[in-house]
Amino acid sequence: MKLARYFPILDWGAGYRGETFVNDLVAAVIVTIMLIPQSLAYALLAGLPPQIGLYASILPLIAYAVFGTSRQLAVGPVAILSLMTAAAAGKIAPQGTAEYIEAALILAVLSGAILLAMGLFRMGFLANFLSHPVVSGFITASGIIIAASQLKHILGVDAGGHTLFEIVRTLAGSAPETNPPTLYIGGASLIFLFWVRKQFRPLLKRLGLSDKTATIIARAGPVFAVAAGIAAVAGLNLDAQGVKILREVPQDLPALGAPRFAPDLWMQLLGSAALISLIGFVESVSVGQTLAAKKRERIDPNQELIALGAASLSAGVSSGYPVTGGLARSAVNFDAGAQTPAAGAFTAIGIALATVFLTPFLFYLPQAVLAATIIVAVLSLVDMGEVINVWRYSKSDFAAMAATILATLAFGVELGVTTGVALSLLLHLYNTSRPHFAVVGQVPGTQHYRNIERHAVVTSERVLTIRIDESLYFANARFLEDVVYGVIGERPDLRHLVLMCPAVNRIDASGLESLERINHALKDAGVTLHLSEVKGPVMDRLKRTHFLEDLTGKVFLHQFEAMEALDADCARTAFGPGAAAASAPGGSAAPSQAGAYPGKL
Amino acid sequence: MKLARYFPILDWGAGYRGETFVNDLVAAVIVTIMLIPQSLAYALLAGLPPQIGLYASILPLIAYAVFGTSRQLAVGPVAILSLMTAAAAGKIAPQGTAEYIEAALILAVLSGAILLAMGLFRMGFLANFLSHPVVSGFITASGIIIAASQLKHILGVDAGGHTLFEIVRTLAGSAPETNPPTLYIGGASLIFLFWVRKQFRPLLKRLGLSDKTATIIARAGPVFAVAAGIAAVAGLNLDAQGVKILREVPQDLPALGAPRFAPDLWMQLLGSAALISLIGFVESVSVGQTLAAKKRERIDPNQELIALGAASLSAGVSSGYPVTGGLARSAVNFDAGAQTPAAGAFTAIGIALATVFLTPFLFYLPQAVLAATIIVAVLSLVDMGEVINVWRYSKSDFAAMAATILATLAFGVELGVTTGVALSLLLHLYNTSRPHFAVVGQVPGTQHYRNIERHAVVTSERVLTIRIDESLYFANARFLEDVVYGVIGERPDLRHLVLMCPAVNRIDASGLESLERINHALKDAGVTLHLSEVKGPVMDRLKRTHFLEDLTGKVFLHQFEAMEALDADCARTAFGPGAAAASAPGGSAAPSQAGAYPGKL
Repeated sequence: MKLARYFPILDWGAGYRGETFVNDLVAAVIVTIMLIPQSLAYALLAGLPPQIGLYASILPLIAYAVFGTSRQLAVGPVAILSLMTAAAAGKIAPQGTAEYIEAALILAVLSGAILLAMGLFRMGFLANFLSHPVVSGFITASGIIIAASQLKHILGVDAGGHTLFEIVRTLAGSAPETNPPTLYIGGASLIFLFWVRKQFRPLLKRLGLSDKTATIIARAGPVFAVAAGIAAVAGLNLDAQGVKILREVPQDLPALGAPRFAPDLWMQLLGSAALISLIGFVESVSVGQTLAAKKRERIDPNQELIALGAASLSAGVSSGYPVTGGLARSAVNFDAGAQTPAAGAFTAIGIALATVFLTPFLFYLPQAVLAATIIVAVLSLVDMGEVINVWRYSKSDFAAMAATILATLAFGVELGVTTGVALSLLLHLYNTSRPHFAVVGQVPGTQHYRNIERHAVVTSERVLTIRIDESLYFANARFLEDVVYGVIGERPDLRHLVLMCPAVNRIDASGLESLERINHALKDAGVTLHLSEVKGPVMDRLKRTHFLEDLTGKVFLHQFEAMEALDADCARTAFGPGAAAASAPGGSAAPSQAGAYPGKL
Repeated sequence: MKLARYFPILDWGAGYRGETFVNDLVAAVIVTIMLIPQSLAYALLAGLPPQIGLYASILPLIAYAVFGTSRQLAVGPVAILSLMTAAAAGKIAPQGTAEYIEAALILAVLSGAILLAMGLFRMGFLANFLSHPVVSGFITASGIIIAASQLKHILGVDAGGHTLFEIVRTLAGSAPETNPPTLYIGGASLIFLFWVRKQFRPLLKRLGLSDKTATIIARAGPVFAVAAGIAAVAGLNLDAQGVKILREVPQDLPALGAPRFAPDLWMQLLGSAALISLIGFVESVSVGQTLAAKKRERIDPNQELIALGAASLSAGVSSGYPVTGGLARSAVNFDAGAQTPAAGAFTAIGIALATVFLTPFLFYLPQAVLAATIIVAVLSLVDMGEVINVWRYSKSDFAAMAATILATLAFGVELGVTTGVALSLLLHLYNTSRPHFAVVGQVPGTQHYRNIERHAVVTSERVLTIRIDESLYFANARFLEDVVYGVIGERPDLRHLVLMCPAVNRIDASGLESLERINHALKDAGVTLHLSEVKGPVMDRLKRTHFLEDLTGKVFLHQFEAMEALDADCARTAFGPGAAAASAPGGSAAPSQAGAYPGKL
């Protein structure tokens, strides 16, 4: 039982049958064909030799098959992590050097170790720091940067940089040296790939293919572009005219071995590796959850951390670079009918065979074609509609998203995502630090109590009820005091204050401290404090403290009950001996209409 | 109107009367007497010449009188900020140098500017980052460090350091050189001051004094100790035997002028100044709120930032060091009958007169007596009972508190408070990232729906209701998906899922995204998603999106209404044509007892 939790392969492996094998094998063949150009392209994006992309698609897939809980997720190099790897390794050494490749390897090992540790200590919740607007804004901005960075391959010029500004500046400077044959190949590939993405699938369906088959064939668009590109360059001898090609890709399988341990270098890369881990995990787990839910299966996020950690670690010891579960390849794997993670292992074998037997045919593959496949893939990640949706839904979420996008474009991926996370935390604290409070009154003729500003309700002169619409915790504890002290300052006749707590899900030690201070201050001011409709778990916890003993008033199960008891109490005092002044009209026993309430909250 | 908001003096100054003047003057005289030894002692604690403590009690008090909103708060040097000043300035230069004094001045200017900026931009909410357990733990640990750091003056030896470890180590090393006369004076002062604090007030009351008078006289204990100490040293010529005394304190009023502007130095002190600002603000606003509430008055936290900023700035331009509102002196001010901030201005005049006319009498004042007053004052801040209370109430709050205490003792004040803030944020996110969810069923014979694990309720095979007990925001959005996908994975017969939202106070963009993904995934899995009891403000916001149009099911006002509609729908399907299998016993129309529910949440 325990073992199967950490090795899900024992679970699905036990019931593995011939029919499942055939389904997985078919899916693996389809994914392999799609993965070959993608792996080469992403290695290029990461600034690494093309074979590194293939290496990152072998061992990591087998590791995920052993440890992963998603049955359809396909891991390997992805666009965003390739960009982040380029940014991090670029701080260590220039592209093309052995140190740069080594830095990418170390990033894979470090991020694998971080993911593994997070999984073992069940710290998947850390991914929650990345709110949806931050992730979505980050992906959009990264997509723009990636697309811009690939333009140099389409034009056949030199350019570089990790921010949009640098990329545009260097591109503008080198644009006059554009290589026409490269531009023709790149431009044709772009047009073809956009056409495939938009028009090919409907065409195939009109030709009588099923929706699923049409989708899978359309996804193979890059394979056609690659084949055509190779044929064009080889046939027309375009490499002699300045079209950059892959040239010799080593036919060897990846060498195994850990990267050199240099503590300073590893420490320098630690922060980048942590960001790569978090972003990779968030991307992968979102894809995994969506696919699993479609089949009424589920994934275990903490075990996913272990699986992705194992995948990244094995990339780090087999000449790869950081990997995670990718959206496009997983969707193809799902559509192609993969039923177990074994499909991933078969894909790994396919990529290994391709590395050994297919690489000679890639000699003439133009970089412009690979760049075109990247541009078309990442532009689908740029989602400006989502920016508008978030703007409409919540200005505060929009602020976090806009800050992420702008910081990513202007300062690069790492500062971008850090800015977004910090700002969304700050805004969350700000929003919950001023929660919704409502003074409530009785809806005439009922036992319901509603906001006096939204409903026609009846209130009492001597008893005031405030409904708190938020958990009480450190971010808003002081605000509660502020509200209460403000109200009692404005209401000199007040005798009882009731805090109505049906939406208080939690009271932390700061909230408790505030309640204690409020109780104490109100006592000095001659006002009795009561609570009503406190939730069970909150009450359980309050019972462990002195608060309930010290409370000047009572805790009522229902608000109606509270008002019955307190109105009666006030009435007794008002009409009792020696209380002549208090029995004036508009006194406690005669509730006044809400319209007459002078205060404002 | 607008002007009076930023200058509260216009408010209370307009109605200032002779009677108020007399009350304020009496309070000012009492506070002045108490403040003289305190100001000298805190300057000593901050590692500054004694007159700096007096200087910090003149202009800042006048600034607060102009801008402050609390009628009883008394500002000036306080123990915690003195310790923090020593830690920050000690990083720049050794105590006793001109650079050290300059650093303290710059800290006052910087922290004044930070407070002022926070007030003008209404960023008082930033103080909410400091949760009660963190502040309380920080004060306790600081109290221990301060008391330990003063032992050297009691023993008459040299020692130092900003962490408990360093202090104890240097003390242990120099203990053999203890100066006996100093130890006698210090020990006697300690015993006397502890006796005054515990026994003197009851004694005075037994002698027939009122509670208030007894409290005020007992607070003046340090003044008696100072007088006795001066008399002992002067009479017995103890300074010749190695008892350290204040010697000449300049009789001048503070020189005015801003500290030298050296960008590097100012940048180096910026972080420390920010921490000093936050801690000072939290301490001051807590005291101010408590006192104001006792008189049914209120303070404005954002204007308090401006007032404390002005006070700190004026300390920085009048040879002082960072100041804030102090607990002990404010309590004395309150008890002595201060009615307006004018009492603070009168106190400033008192301290100025004392600086000019009283300082010659302080020549023989032994440092050991001042150290004893500090030790007695700060040990009242050490509150181990609160540590136990927090442990009992919440393990998570306790963790933040314990981390703050340990980090402060081990690594000093700045790392201590930073660790506490980071950990409490992390724990808050962790706690809300796994909120309480409950599967609910109908309490038989009522319209109420309760947790199936706490109550005997009736549920349906085809309809599942989950009550969410937390706002949906980025920290828990993914957890909600996890819960929902888990449930539908376990319930192959499920047709309808209702999310019951009476305690959902807010849905941010991440929460909305999760709901959209859940809706989409459930659609693919053949389950209809409904919401019930959604709050008004949450519903208003959802209406601005496509979510309600895309929702496969409906939004019901009440849970009962939802179950009526959905049970009827299932019943129609179950008994309709071609649904023979579904009409088996235990089907949708016949609700099963909660005990039979197999899942676990």
